[in-house]
Amino acid sequence: ALKDILNDVPAVDVAELLEEFDAEISIVIFRLLKKQKAADVFTYLSSGKGLELMNMFTAQQLSEVMSNLEPDERVALMEELPGHLTQRVMNSMKADDRKLVQQLLGYPDESVGRLMTPRYVKVKKHWTIQKAMEHIRNFGHSVETVNVIYVVDANEHLIDDLRLNQLILADTEARIETLMDESFEALSAFDDQEDAVKMLSKYDRVAMPVVDSDGILVGIVTVDDVIDVAEEETTEDMQLMAGMDALDNYYSQTTIFEMVKKRIGWLAFLFIGQLFTTTAMGAYESVIANAVILSLFVPMIISTGGNSGSQAATLIIRAISTDDIDMNEWLKVLGRELLSGLMLGGIMAIIGFFVILSWGYFASDAATQELVLTALVVGLSLIGVVLWGNLSGSMLPFVLSKMGLDPAVTSAPFVSTLSDVTGIIIYFSIAIALLEGVVL
Amino acid sequence: ALKDILNDVPAVDVAELLEEFDAEISIVIFRLLKKQKAADVFTYLSSGKGLELMNMFTAQQLSEVMSNLEPDERVALMEELPGHLTQRVMNSMKADDRKLVQQLLGYPDESVGRLMTPRYVKVKKHWTIQKAMEHIRNFGHSVETVNVIYVVDANEHLIDDLRLNQLILADTEARIETLMDESFEALSAFDDQEDAVKMLSKYDRVAMPVVDSDGILVGIVTVDDVIDVAEEETTEDMQLMAGMDALDNYYSQTTIFEMVKKRIGWLAFLFIGQLFTTTAMGAYESVIANAVILSLFVPMIISTGGNSGSQAATLIIRAISTDDIDMNEWLKVLGRELLSGLMLGGIMAIIGFFVILSWGYFASDAATQELVLTALVVGLSLIGVVLWGNLSGSMLPFVLSKMGLDPAVTSAPFVSTLSDVTGIIIYFSIAIALLEGVVL
Ligand SMILES: [Mg+2]
Ligand SMILES: [Mg+2]
Ligand SMILES: [Mg+2]
Ligand SMILES: [Mg+2]
Ligand SMILES: [Mg+2]
Ligand SMILES: [Mg+2]
Ligand SMILES: [Mg+2]
Ligand SMILES: [Mg+2]
Ligand SMILES: [Mg+2]
Ligand SMILES: [Mg+2]
Ligand SMILES: [Mg+2]
Ligand SMILES: [Mg+2]
Ligand SMILES: [Mg+2]
Repeated sequence: ALKDILNDVPAVDVAELLEEFDAEISIVIFRLLKKQKAADVFTYLSSGKGLELMNMFTAQQLSEVMSNLEPDERVALMEELPGHLTQRVMNSMKADDRKLVQQLLGYPDESVGRLMTPRYVKVKKHWTIQKAMEHIRNFGHSVETVNVIYVVDANEHLIDDLRLNQLILADTEARIETLMDESFEALSAFDDQEDAVKMLSKYDRVAMPVVDSDGILVGIVTVDDVIDVAEEETTEDMQLMAGMDALDNYYSQTTIFEMVKKRIGWLAFLFIGQLFTTTAMGAYESVIANAVILSLFVPMIISTGGNSGSQAATLIIRAISTDDIDMNEWLKVLGRELLSGLMLGGIMAIIGFFVILSWGYFASDAATQELVLTALVVGLSLIGVVLWGNLSGSMLPFVLSKMGLDPAVTSAPFVSTLSDVTGIIIYFSIAIALLEGVVL
Repeated sequence: ALKDILNDVPAVDVAELLEEFDAEISIVIFRLLKKQKAADVFTYLSSGKGLELMNMFTAQQLSEVMSNLEPDERVALMEELPGHLTQRVMNSMKADDRKLVQQLLGYPDESVGRLMTPRYVKVKKHWTIQKAMEHIRNFGHSVETVNVIYVVDANEHLIDDLRLNQLILADTEARIETLMDESFEALSAFDDQEDAVKMLSKYDRVAMPVVDSDGILVGIVTVDDVIDVAEEETTEDMQLMAGMDALDNYYSQTTIFEMVKKRIGWLAFLFIGQLFTTTAMGAYESVIANAVILSLFVPMIISTGGNSGSQAATLIIRAISTDDIDMNEWLKVLGRELLSGLMLGGIMAIIGFFVILSWGYFASDAATQELVLTALVVGLSLIGVVLWGNLSGSMLPFVLSKMGLDPAVTSAPFVSTLSDVTGIIIYFSIAIALLEGVVL
């Protein structure tokens, strides 16, 4: 029957199915699920779909779902809940669950404390392996993972972490302490959730313990949740790097109105920043009036500077966020980007010179002195703009980071706007120097 | 002693330490490590450092390290090895190890086959839990993870996967088949490694089985390696989106010469693409000659189109790569981006109109009819360029993907160049229509 099939399919696939149907049908399907399965499915629903179903739950259904969620999933749900539902959902929880959720919500937004679950296995060092295994058998059903076992002292301080296979491979009469190396890696509940991504990835763990400021074990973060954080944080970075505010939700879950709100700020800011290009161009108004041809190359020159800046900014932002380069390596980066900027600028100058020369030749059928000089102006300007784009694009992430901002705010459009202004000044300065008395 | 400390510190931290020292010192430190630890540390070294040390290994050291690596790590090493070392390293392996590596290298580049390890626990369905646990105790030391146990039939076909805690919590006399639901998720060895990222993340697994085309279990991929793939693939996407070829290695590990090679292609291509802006500007040469003021707004107009395109492209590329939107949803996306493009363009038009009006008023102290009309031209052009940027930026990822290219090739610089040309045509067409007879 449909009911059996639904209960055999993985929860995430059932959730995908529910997304395809409208409210009336999906609530019918949802009611066919067993209690634990229903709660699992609920955690995989988009926030829109989850709210839609929640609004149709009876009081009993709501409290059944809530009591079958993991503590970290309850926290994630409360974080996304619109204000008017908070009280109703809080009231639907058992007193203990509610207290725990409130306690976890006490940790800062985007902290490890918000991500962790207090359902893990802990053992004492004087226990035998046998006793520990019995303990795991008794409590294993009520924890998120038994893959890692934590050793705490009498005061609940974390003193070591063990992998389940160490216990399984060990002599059952031996004591836990014989397996311990008294060395472990732990997160603080107040760390940023991005630290959890870095630590689990660095140490290749499937879960990592979380301690409070006294070193007391308060929870664990599991790799499945950390992967979700990594995906979110990367999406945020990419959106910042594209010159917009990061969305609060998936693209498909964001209304057009919200989308406009997230995008208009930077668009307007950069437009106003572009007033400097207008002013810069205005300063050369008489030059343009004398040689309109010079204005034709402005877009091509300034965009090349922006492109070089966009490349440099992205390389550095990503290298910083993956810990490939350190904040204090900015001088080394500056040296590298100076050199590569000169090489790139040099190559572009040669390409630019010959491209403009052939373009002018085919357009006017003659290689006049003016054309050669103009091509030279373009070529030389390219060295300047590519180098400037490279330097500003690579240094801005360090500057923003120093100012406490996300380096990803150094967006391609931001760097482009900066190099547009500089590019105009570089280009017309070189033009005046070389063409004075010839075409000007 | 230093030796003891080194052997107690996690391998990845020892590797970080080695990166700080030059060859002579790091080989001395490396020789203090126990055999298994040395191999573990070796897997965490950058490719540059790894090669540096490898060149100083004696034949015996090399074969010790090689025999202590996991099979998937041997494959990863062979993939990165420069050609002249391949034979030496292959010869340093035991015959069995070498055969396995060659077999795994037979799978396509960037496939799941290259990522998997054949060291996992498999059991038969008629075994008792007790027998399975004994099997795990006997072979657990030689596998990558015992967290997941795989059930195969007599012909080695995968028929189910179980978690170790299911076995631990079960009655030891029961048979494996009582735990089975005959439902499992598996990867194919020929799948792209990005599928491994999507599957492990979707199904929240710490490992996933890999089968060949006959459904025979050939290996498992583990979450630690999958996280590394996800990081690499995201870095690649970001670099493509910045308008360059993806680096083969980390920024810090890439020589300046390689860097220039990866960046110059797109810089030169986009520069040549910008010839269209020159040609487009050239078509309006007489218009500019009559009203130089119009040329002043060109950079600001076209960059706004590029900014809107960069936002749209990034939103869509990321939504496609995280499976948030499907390839066949392009029409829905088109509708959304049409609407949001009109809204963004409309707001920008109003901002643009008043910004140009005040800019002109402060510059010339008079709100002439020409100024009002010029501000109107800028405003109306903004609707056009923002809308066009939005539509081309959001549709190009679908087009490229349809052509079999990575949607991330739709870089911000690429979209900008496209909208620069269109922006010039839109702007001057509106200018001619509104200003003919007034300033032109
Ligand atoms: Mg330990
Ligand atoms: Mg953050
Ligand atoms: Mg790792
Ligand atoms: Mg969780
Ligand atoms: Mg965030
Ligand atoms: Mg960030
Ligand atoms: Mg199963
Ligand atoms: Mg790929
Ligand atoms: Mg997941
Ligand atoms: Mg591995
Ligand atoms: Mg790749
Ligand atoms: Mg890609
Ligand atoms: Mg531009």
